[in-house]
Amino acid sequence: MIQLDLNAIAEHLESLEETIIFKLIDRAHWRANSVIYEKGRSGFAGNSDKSLFELRLLFQERMDAEFGRFCVPEERPFNKKLPTPGRKVSIDKTGLHTTDYNCINLTSDILTDYLALVPCICKAGDDGQYGSSVEHDVYAVQAIARRVHYGALYVAESKYRQMPEKLKPLIKAEDFNSLYTALTRKDVEEAIVARVREKVISVQSRIRTEIRHTITPETIVRFYHNCVIPKTKKGEVLYLLNRPPN
Amino acid sequence: MIQLDLNAIAEHLESLEETIIFKLIDRAHWRANSVIYEKGRSGFAGNSDKSLFELRLLFQERMDAEFGRFCVPEERPFNKKLPTPGRKVSIDKTGLHTTDYNCINLTSDILTDYLALVPCICKAGDDGQYGSSVEHDVYAVQAIARRVHYGALYVAESKYRQMPEKLKPLIKAEDFNSLYTALTRKDVEEAIVARVREKVISVQSRIRTEIRHTITPETIVRFYHNCVIPKTKKGEVLYLLNRPPN
Repeated sequence: MIQLDLNAIAEHLESLEETIIFKLIDRAHWRANSVIYEKGRSGFAGNSDKSLFELRLLFQERMDAEFGRFCVPEERPFNKKLPTPGRKVSIDKTGLHTTDYNCINLTSDILTDYLALVPCICKAGDDGQYGSSVEHDVYAVQAIARRVHYGALYVAESKYRQMPEKLKPLIKAEDFNSLYTALTRKDVEEAIVARVREKVISVQSRIRTEIRHTITPETIVRFYHNCVIPKTKKGEVLYLLNRPPN
Repeated sequence: MIQLDLNAIAEHLESLEETIIFKLIDRAHWRANSVIYEKGRSGFAGNSDKSLFELRLLFQERMDAEFGRFCVPEERPFNKKLPTPGRKVSIDKTGLHTTDYNCINLTSDILTDYLALVPCICKAGDDGQYGSSVEHDVYAVQAIARRVHYGALYVAESKYRQMPEKLKPLIKAEDFNSLYTALTRKDVEEAIVARVREKVISVQSRIRTEIRHTITPETIVRFYHNCVIPKTKKGEVLYLLNRPPN
């Protein structure tokens, strides 16, 4: 059984920060390569309506689906119509209350924000490294999505158990904004971004910037402020609005 | 055209170090989970002769092959009989002289060494996170293989151009050991591992070890000493032995 204790959940979210930072730095090893995001320019025959990045994400998720990735609550897919798992996946009892995890799927928002982030972390221009770029794009968006959905689901359930009397009337009234406010803890958010800022600095401290491109801490701080944290909270509200009363 | 200058090649190899370190730390986020390396226990119907890790690597490489990964000289596959690329991949003129890049394929050696490394970087035991573990195993072995093959091919060609008169008779005599010795630069190797040690320390310096498992610098230093560096040199020799005289 996954521990539905807010501290344990916060620690797991903290432990996912390095993974996100690593994957963004790895993507930034390559140029922005904007052509990989242009529809119809993937070079794949018969897939002219998609970009190389979109195709890579689709192929990756088809493979992941066969391995059972999306049986895990916090692994929400970016694509629809994925294959069923080819293997049996056993999942710990989650303690979550929802009939359909895909009611809490923030991937569309994450994708928009990630695509806006790429030109901020990568050097401008084209180095021809399209394969490596889309490969690391996919790893990055998946790491971000895992963090956002894990937070959304488990933080929401845990807060519900902490203050059911405060949340129940807001859920009943379907009051998105009041729920969002009730779930907001400014001090916690500030502590998260301060820690992320320090991690981005220390992780890159031995990189020789003449030979490898680094990312500025403020870019990642902004991404946490404008995407990771608000999308997690949006997911928390969606979870609560879809939580059947027990 | 890729720069066949030994300094530029060394700098590219240096820039790949963070990627390898990141991917190993990410794998070490999960337990050793030894069952994922046991043949016949993947849980996939009809694939009873392979481990979950072997299947993940195979599925990943099938996808990568469709995207054209193995058109790139330094991307040598771990598996055989992969699909042909589904898209046109344009590769810069490499300056390499070889008729078949797969004469220089160190993946079998890398795999053996990597599987021995896993219990040294991961906490012992089983956390059930099989999907995430094999996913990050694959990213790690691919990053290591890319570094080894890049070094093998480009360092060898560059050294050949630097000292053809010294290497030609050894190549003609197919003298593996003398070639290996001629390509060895102890001082360079020591500088590499010293740098890797410092990077492993600084990259992890802000990780809270109570909540995320870290890897000891000496483990990665040993892996560079016993695998990355010698396998790169073995690949250099194989390249030279397969280099048609021009």
